[in-house]
Amino acid sequence: MLKETKEKLEYVLSVLKIQQIYFNACAVLSFDLETVCPPKGMNNQGETSAYLSNESFKLSKEPKFIESYEYLYQHIDELDEFDSVLIKGLHKSFVQEKNITPEMNLEWSKAFNNSWVNWLNAKEKDDYSVFAPSLKEVRDINLKMIELNEERKPVAYDNLLDTYETGMTGVDLDKYFGECKERLIPLLKKIQASPKKIRTDFLSRPVTDEQQKAMAEYLLNVIGFDFTRGALSTTEHPFTNGLAKDDIRVTTHYYPNAFISSMYSVIHEGGHALFEMFQPAENYDHYISGKKTMGMHESTSRFYENRIGRSREFVHLIFPKCKEIFSNVFYDVTEEEFYEAINCVEPSFIRTEADEFTYTFHIIIRYELEKEIVNNGAKIEDLPKMWNDKYEEYLGIRPSTYKEGILQDVHWSSGFGYFPTYALGNMYNAMYYNAMVKDFNVGEAIKDGNIQKINDWMTERVWKKADRLEPKEWIKEITGREFTAKDFLDYLEEKYSELYNL
Amino acid sequence: MLKETKEKLEYVLSVLKIQQIYFNACAVLSFDLETVCPPKGMNNQGETSAYLSNESFKLSKEPKFIESYEYLYQHIDELDEFDSVLIKGLHKSFVQEKNITPEMNLEWSKAFNNSWVNWLNAKEKDDYSVFAPSLKEVRDINLKMIELNEERKPVAYDNLLDTYETGMTGVDLDKYFGECKERLIPLLKKIQASPKKIRTDFLSRPVTDEQQKAMAEYLLNVIGFDFTRGALSTTEHPFTNGLAKDDIRVTTHYYPNAFISSMYSVIHEGGHALFEMFQPAENYDHYISGKKTMGMHESTSRFYENRIGRSREFVHLIFPKCKEIFSNVFYDVTEEEFYEAINCVEPSFIRTEADEFTYTFHIIIRYELEKEIVNNGAKIEDLPKMWNDKYEEYLGIRPSTYKEGILQDVHWSSGFGYFPTYALGNMYNAMYYNAMVKDFNVGEAIKDGNIQKINDWMTERVWKKADRLEPKEWIKEITGREFTAKDFLDYLEEKYSELYNL
Repeated sequence: MLKETKEKLEYVLSVLKIQQIYFNACAVLSFDLETVCPPKGMNNQGETSAYLSNESFKLSKEPKFIESYEYLYQHIDELDEFDSVLIKGLHKSFVQEKNITPEMNLEWSKAFNNSWVNWLNAKEKDDYSVFAPSLKEVRDINLKMIELNEERKPVAYDNLLDTYETGMTGVDLDKYFGECKERLIPLLKKIQASPKKIRTDFLSRPVTDEQQKAMAEYLLNVIGFDFTRGALSTTEHPFTNGLAKDDIRVTTHYYPNAFISSMYSVIHEGGHALFEMFQPAENYDHYISGKKTMGMHESTSRFYENRIGRSREFVHLIFPKCKEIFSNVFYDVTEEEFYEAINCVEPSFIRTEADEFTYTFHIIIRYELEKEIVNNGAKIEDLPKMWNDKYEEYLGIRPSTYKEGILQDVHWSSGFGYFPTYALGNMYNAMYYNAMVKDFNVGEAIKDGNIQKINDWMTERVWKKADRLEPKEWIKEITGREFTAKDFLDYLEEKYSELYNL
Repeated sequence: MLKETKEKLEYVLSVLKIQQIYFNACAVLSFDLETVCPPKGMNNQGETSAYLSNESFKLSKEPKFIESYEYLYQHIDELDEFDSVLIKGLHKSFVQEKNITPEMNLEWSKAFNNSWVNWLNAKEKDDYSVFAPSLKEVRDINLKMIELNEERKPVAYDNLLDTYETGMTGVDLDKYFGECKERLIPLLKKIQASPKKIRTDFLSRPVTDEQQKAMAEYLLNVIGFDFTRGALSTTEHPFTNGLAKDDIRVTTHYYPNAFISSMYSVIHEGGHALFEMFQPAENYDHYISGKKTMGMHESTSRFYENRIGRSREFVHLIFPKCKEIFSNVFYDVTEEEFYEAINCVEPSFIRTEADEFTYTFHIIIRYELEKEIVNNGAKIEDLPKMWNDKYEEYLGIRPSTYKEGILQDVHWSSGFGYFPTYALGNMYNAMYYNAMVKDFNVGEAIKDGNIQKINDWMTERVWKKADRLEPKEWIKEITGREFTAKDFLDYLEEKYSELYNL
């Protein structure tokens, strides 16, 4: 590396170090906002966050900083693999953001924060009109961002999707989701026509928060979550927040009559956390740990939640503890009944509580609506009806409140394009599961409680290069195959045909 | 106000607004550190805090800012009462801090954070040697700070005391504490010789965290804590943190075999919170809400905890709820037995759990040691023995572990001079209690659950001007009398003579 290149790189890293401090502060503020902050304190805290993130944004607009990484972009062959990923990413953001002023950025941060507060209130009051103006504003901001990007893709939605899942387009998704609809709609009909009766009465037996907390901590320990580098809290909507290299937090929500909800959201968020915890330490030194896409992330979380968590072997592993902690629930339940109950297919309103099979429809519905909102200028006031119509069309059910309909998810309070990553995640992990079983007996590892063996494979094959590759390259590197929805659909067909004796 | 004055004032306020943002961020970080942050994440978060507080510190060193408030200090007669308090405070800090560079400030912030982590570990391991080097470093920093202050007071400790309790000196405290020792030591001997038997067996009956949480929320509601502007969390060491005008948080710690500990720490912290919640809103606009001294603050917290909380009337008010929430504790306990138990005088090791009577000795011991540390260069390794000797001398008991001795309190991890404010607080509130009873029947208000009446009086008489007056002026304004320890000592004598039939 030439001296000038070295100096520029050091300068770039020194700016990123400060930006990381702002990021860390904002992450703590955001975590606090969702877990502890009292209602009347939220506005002030939102302003603090907006100010700090704008300070960081201003740093990214410093001419010397831009000049330095643009120089490095011209000399990319002198850099190692990590730094070259970093510099390419900076160059890309530069192009996307160069027409965004700090004033716009500050205004938008405030708008997103405000929108989140409005969403929370709207959901609590079950009043769409409280959130609708924010939703419109969020769309306008998203469109404005796209308009300001000189190298934008021609279809508006593709630009948003690209921020979460680099290289994926609406054309790709239409194909994958088309295949899903083609195979899953008839399969759902067969399942619904099956005479198989699955017992689910015990799932709504009352439990205390303390029982659920004990179970949540047990499950996180089982999958290998490191409590010296992470924490568990409660929030309205569960999430994972990687605040720093050694500070990865997951949250859950305890419902007194739905212990399954917290159990599986904890495994899901725990899966996200493992990805953050077991990525290469160099990612932090090179400031590229945020490069992994949301689809990659969701592949991991849904891998632990569904492929591991809802397998017969995992049920076998945790069943004794379930009987111990939830003795008032499981006194008359068999292991097989529990397995069947957590895999029972039943169209329902709430995405996060949907069974593994119908889940994909929840995503397809949001994806189709997002395209209407972003590409086709759908009227904001028409969205609840469009939402409900789609639920009726694909799942045969119609929400009767906003809470169980369009207001259920937080995501649209800050933008569009995230939802498809959940479904892509399922497709990725079905592919790498099929690679994993070639290397060792995964079911046996689960049954033995040897999740470490799975985590080791994931570390080496799935997590290691995630920050350095685009999704399509990444899944090919792991599996040796091109991306496809087929593995996922085969898996669903096989698992649910067996369960429902089809 | 002249145009130039107006412009300078506006400029000063604009800088303070940004500093307030940094303050808010650091307050959230600190709250998070104590409540959620996982062990390995603490260092990183400490660095974030140190960076942000240093950014704020750098703003306070901007020549234009200093020049502006120094100009205003010269034109103080043009300012209103609030702004003139503000400008005097800025001028005073300027003098105290003008020789402190941002580098020193950053280094010290890191040292204090590090010291806090070491204290936590030392206490957990009951190993004084883990904390001793930090304690030495903290003393060195405190002495260096004093040395850099060109207008320092001749006795080192007085400078530290002055940062918490403006205008108070070691000479004052020697007098007040001398009176305390003179009257309380013989009184304690009489109490210990009294044949009165107080029943306390039920205080260690086991309760769950959930019972204690329900009780904590009930008590905060009873005293008028506003949950839309505040929150309750748990920490190792209870505290109150005013993060922003509408975000005042209290914490507590639930011990399974000492429900009284959390009950009274919650009332104590709740008292701090009421002070923050019910101060004039203008304090925030004029950035003077931090001017109230720690002694004023402790007067309030200890007023609610002891004068209200440990009174017969308060016990009468809350007893039905105690029986309801802690039904497994109170099934064979009378109201009078409960009153006696929470006022039982019994020399003990832990300050925060000490009874109201022996509490003052805990403070005197710390005060006397602080003077040895700061003024007389006591050897750090000798402190545990000095600590234990004093406990033996004043209370007749000797700690056998560091945890129940010198490592019990967090305070020395960041400096000296705070402890005396607890005792001063008792003396202040005894004086204003005597003023309050002239205006209305306080006992009856408590018995009726009309704490609002007390809060209204406190708002108008005690809290309103706290940020604008020095402690000695303030107590004189409230009571029309000079500060004295007499009211407090009379109160103790009367209350405990009655209780112990002396």
